[in-house]
Amino acid sequence: MDVTLAEISSPGRVDPGAGITTEELALAARNHGIPLEALRYDVTPLGLHYLLIHYDIPLIDPAAWRLTVGGLVGKTLTFGLAELKELPRRTVRVTMECAGNGRARLEPRPVSQPWLVEAVGTAEWTGVPLREVLAAAGADPAAAEVVFTGADHGVERGVEQDYQRSLPLAEALRDEVLLAYEMNGLPLAPQHGFPLRLVVPGWYGMAHVKWLREITVVAEPFTGFQQSVAYRVRHEPDEPGDPVTRIHPRALLVPPGFPDFMSRARVVRPGTVTLEGRAWSGRAPVERVDVSVDGGRTWSPATLAEPDGHPWAWRRFTFEWAASPGRHVLSARATTANGDSQPEGQAWNRGGFVNNAVQHVPVACIAS
Amino acid sequence: MDVTLAEISSPGRVDPGAGITTEELALAARNHGIPLEALRYDVTPLGLHYLLIHYDIPLIDPAAWRLTVGGLVGKTLTFGLAELKELPRRTVRVTMECAGNGRARLEPRPVSQPWLVEAVGTAEWTGVPLREVLAAAGADPAAAEVVFTGADHGVERGVEQDYQRSLPLAEALRDEVLLAYEMNGLPLAPQHGFPLRLVVPGWYGMAHVKWLREITVVAEPFTGFQQSVAYRVRHEPDEPGDPVTRIHPRALLVPPGFPDFMSRARVVRPGTVTLEGRAWSGRAPVERVDVSVDGGRTWSPATLAEPDGHPWAWRRFTFEWAASPGRHVLSARATTANGDSQPEGQAWNRGGFVNNAVQHVPVACIAS
Repeated sequence: MDVTLAEISSPGRVDPGAGITTEELALAARNHGIPLEALRYDVTPLGLHYLLIHYDIPLIDPAAWRLTVGGLVGKTLTFGLAELKELPRRTVRVTMECAGNGRARLEPRPVSQPWLVEAVGTAEWTGVPLREVLAAAGADPAAAEVVFTGADHGVERGVEQDYQRSLPLAEALRDEVLLAYEMNGLPLAPQHGFPLRLVVPGWYGMAHVKWLREITVVAEPFTGFQQSVAYRVRHEPDEPGDPVTRIHPRALLVPPGFPDFMSRARVVRPGTVTLEGRAWSGRAPVERVDVSVDGGRTWSPATLAEPDGHPWAWRRFTFEWAASPGRHVLSARATTANGDSQPEGQAWNRGGFVNNAVQHVPVACIAS
Repeated sequence: MDVTLAEISSPGRVDPGAGITTEELALAARNHGIPLEALRYDVTPLGLHYLLIHYDIPLIDPAAWRLTVGGLVGKTLTFGLAELKELPRRTVRVTMECAGNGRARLEPRPVSQPWLVEAVGTAEWTGVPLREVLAAAGADPAAAEVVFTGADHGVERGVEQDYQRSLPLAEALRDEVLLAYEMNGLPLAPQHGFPLRLVVPGWYGMAHVKWLREITVVAEPFTGFQQSVAYRVRHEPDEPGDPVTRIHPRALLVPPGFPDFMSRARVVRPGTVTLEGRAWSGRAPVERVDVSVDGGRTWSPATLAEPDGHPWAWRRFTFEWAASPGRHVLSARATTANGDSQPEGQAWNRGGFVNNAVQHVPVACIAS
């Protein structure tokens, strides 16, 4: 009996039911978030950075691998890994967040990778600035976009594809956009795009194409699946929707005290508890963080760490909390230099994208 | 209003409902399995090895950290990390699996970390053999057990605790039991137990105590929470149950072809497909792997890789499959030198432990 792609690959859907399905759980078991206590590190240790892989991690032989740069260029170029490493190199510290972070808390729930709040991480990426490579190939300054093609292959909503995304030319030419071959001073791990990935500071994770094999300069805006079907903010299935681009502001607390294994509920003892967390935005910089220890009724300013020369990375904040016995709900809220902040409730959309609702951390303060 | 640990920490339970709860999802988002395509590596790259952390990853200052070895010893000793590195060192390649692997497929489902099948990984652990340290302290040869205490602190079913497990003295004195300070040639990552963890080749993961701070030689079998309450195979809540110890045989296939993003359903094209996978056991060595391409109706022997000098690590197998258009279900089944093999169906128990039912990989072979 013949079978077609459409039979094994479903359209997008939302689920009004209470429980997570086995399919969503299979994604959660592969792709993982940052354990929230790891927000304590300036740079996330390898293995703790969030990870979202659409298909499989491809197996790439670095000796045979080549990057092709073509399309609207003076001369199509191909690079081996050693050749890329001879070009100017730069290291940029970047906080990256998945566009679907928070999706599993929406109601009804968009069915996809079921993030709660933990799809974030910060790494030191080292590579060659993309604009060096575009300049070497003689990219047409009148081009509209640059398309990035990865080696990861799969099917999504019936469409067989290699993962592809584009950037407007002006974004692609920003100083800090990298073709990265190192993460935290080590060669890229397979799951982070070995041997080469795009890094676009400030943008949600879908823009940072992994396992890069081709760069194509194009005259018209790219309309591939990941650009025009996926990663759009839509309320109705048939509307074109708005593209997902830069990271909205968010603050997350390191949950204080210690957890219950099963519920992850937090326990602290009475007294002064130093709360800490991280705040970030891919738009204007975070300029203020407020903390609430009464479930959002009242807010007080947290102490923000001084700028540390890493404008694309998260910023640490602290807050001294006088914990008294009983139940408490802690929250933090980031505000940018533009006045953008975080909503108290989730803004629902069909894909579950760009949620940045305020985090709630229930804590039990126990006297004995 | 005062609150108690019992109010925020529930007894164990099983859930006859269809959906995974938000609490289980929160565990799945932190703790992650191996992406099954990473079964292709002899040694699992850092970040892809499975991870199960009961509480939080503790923050440990390596300069201040000490290991204490006490109890029934001639002299209580304390070691800094540099002192441990001066003792004899050994590297052992070990396949580790979580005792709860497969739990989320049980019906009714024991509510805990909801593994499907992916809680496994193989690493090269380097450290000092435990018996060197026990000998240095003059451990009493008539002692019953050795208790290992980690720095991770939390509450579980109402019991506040540091994570603690014991080993019978004879197991603790095995040549290949290590106090490991390196994994895959690098210092332990925070999530794998930095600065020191126990490694007990052949045992399920709960025995490999991370963030080790104390070793205590004791006269009577240890009855702490993780030994006598958790990690027991029980059918009724009140029976003592059997302890979870060594890893039962299991084989897993690298799912062939490419996946659908959402369902993880696999697609191949017609023709010869080389299937590969890994088989392991912590009991007798794996001596045979059989593969079925018809949902378990018929089985054929796979080709097992020659022994490679790593008796505590998984063994690779391959199988040439002539894929024809249509739907197929692939399986692999390991058998040990003792004749132990894998059941077709899950053996249910309340904790969801030591499941090793045969894996089923549905594959659509699509002609065009």
